[in-house]
Amino acid sequence: MTAEQREDPVCLADVEAAHARIAPYIHHTPLLSSELLNKRFGSRLWFKCEQLQKIGAFKARGASNAVLGLTDAVAAGGVATHSSGNHGAALAMAAARRGIPAWVVMPENAPVVKRAAVESYGATIVECAPTLSARETTLDAVIAEHGAHVVHPYDDPRVIAGQGTCALEILDARNVLEGLDDLDVIAIPVGGGGLLGGMALTIKARAPHIEVIGVEPAGADDAFRSFGLGELQPQTNPQTIADGLRSGLGVRNFALIQRFVDTIVTVSEAAIIEAMRLQWTRMKTVVEPSGAVSFAAVLEHNERFRGRRAAIVISGGNVDIDRLPW
Amino acid sequence: MTAEQREDPVCLADVEAAHARIAPYIHHTPLLSSELLNKRFGSRLWFKCEQLQKIGAFKARGASNAVLGLTDAVAAGGVATHSSGNHGAALAMAAARRGIPAWVVMPENAPVVKRAAVESYGATIVECAPTLSARETTLDAVIAEHGAHVVHPYDDPRVIAGQGTCALEILDARNVLEGLDDLDVIAIPVGGGGLLGGMALTIKARAPHIEVIGVEPAGADDAFRSFGLGELQPQTNPQTIADGLRSGLGVRNFALIQRFVDTIVTVSEAAIIEAMRLQWTRMKTVVEPSGAVSFAAVLEHNERFRGRRAAIVISGGNVDIDRLPW
Repeated sequence: MTAEQREDPVCLADVEAAHARIAPYIHHTPLLSSELLNKRFGSRLWFKCEQLQKIGAFKARGASNAVLGLTDAVAAGGVATHSSGNHGAALAMAAARRGIPAWVVMPENAPVVKRAAVESYGATIVECAPTLSARETTLDAVIAEHGAHVVHPYDDPRVIAGQGTCALEILDARNVLEGLDDLDVIAIPVGGGGLLGGMALTIKARAPHIEVIGVEPAGADDAFRSFGLGELQPQTNPQTIADGLRSGLGVRNFALIQRFVDTIVTVSEAAIIEAMRLQWTRMKTVVEPSGAVSFAAVLEHNERFRGRRAAIVISGGNVDIDRLPW
Repeated sequence: MTAEQREDPVCLADVEAAHARIAPYIHHTPLLSSELLNKRFGSRLWFKCEQLQKIGAFKARGASNAVLGLTDAVAAGGVATHSSGNHGAALAMAAARRGIPAWVVMPENAPVVKRAAVESYGATIVECAPTLSARETTLDAVIAEHGAHVVHPYDDPRVIAGQGTCALEILDARNVLEGLDDLDVIAIPVGGGGLLGGMALTIKARAPHIEVIGVEPAGADDAFRSFGLGELQPQTNPQTIADGLRSGLGVRNFALIQRFVDTIVTVSEAAIIEAMRLQWTRMKTVVEPSGAVSFAAVLEHNERFRGRRAAIVISGGNVDIDRLPW
């Protein structure tokens, strides 16, 4: 291992170890395709369906890896996190699987469907004001009271390695799935950067010729700005329907993204909603706004995908079906 | 082959031949499971996701088998059918694939989403009044004018054999999928009986210990009544949200169902809607009312599934997402 490689907070071996650890506890999600969408967008698209993952989002991967890797002594105190939703449900599920308590700090305005998911796994929800500082103060109080071990939603090497396993499954499918003999590009949503960072390092270690595109809502474009400037920029006042992507980029995540991501593009709210609707009507899967941003890039930046073979990571499907944006 | 076996309009060899013929042109749909639903219903459930099939329903199987099996001379004249929707789209797709014309007779009140699907494959829609006799008269006129070959939606051995391929995929998965070492029961929607008849004969030929349950809306219960009386009963004035299951049972289909199905149960409209909603919220897949009746049986006849390993066939997902029943 060279000095340069040692600088990365997570490496391919961590992702491979994570996959071996979590594989019995997560779904190996399908790659689905549609001839109609291929024709419409002039590409060959495979959708990696993480909305069909346990808890309805890729977050099951990272949280499972973190919780399953704890020593018994640490695990005994339980785990805690702050989360607008999917990571909270994922941590609650992983903790329930291991038989340990979990506390999830959630903003008061978190979607009902995401609260219900956390509760369904028996975790304790601790409410806070919808600001990052309120989240952190409340989490500190939980730790002080219960001595729980914190699993950050994205800025944590174990979580990043877990999310990276999604890339292993796509890469391994290349020689198995008809037509998917190789890929030109993989599009991945970016919020805090756990999924994009973990997947990008995995893709570049295994198949460096594949272009890695991060996709972010234009209304929450801190990753786009940070990537362009080469310096971590804060997320200020995010305005997007994609509630899972309002977080600011993590420090470790940004380091991986700088090193392994080829480009980051932003998408409009209209494209996110149209992409979401196309997934529902054409792919027959329930996709949340955050989960649809990668496909929104195919709509809004079509020149990057036309004539190419692309894997599009659909990251989650936890949406209130009684409050749809159309 | 015994005399008794020769009486069946379709046999296992036909289904196996159909699978070899259509496999390159259809999706091998996934079997998805949910621990939350397993816990809630006290069963181990695997959902066979035919809403993720091409054209969003299992009908792609039977129509592809029929169209791909035509001689070039017959195929040259094109194909025609009457259909409330999914079979029409399936025939249109199969015809487009083979490069031949297709005419689809549809009732004026067919769902917009199902009309659009037929049109998207380049088939010609011929409208008629929403009665069986109007459908048949209109279809006769289409045949007289164009000389097209008719592919009936369900009472056709080639279609039945094609639908039976869905059972082959479930049975072949038993030794591959974790936990699915064997099945106790398979629940299958019944409308015209193409899917139920084709799957039941396949299951009983390959794994006769598996119980086969047909599921029908209580408001369109001709199969339930026919099965109970041992004589084909007409479908009169069906009243159900499950628009794909309003057809009367076919003659060939009834013969297969009598011989190979263990029981038929009916489900209420409330159970269908609740089952549909649970699929959307828990499985993150878009399911149409007809596609959810098999799962509705798990809700409403839970004693038949409790403590057992069950495959639940979700037959389709073509629903207008702007007009949901909740």
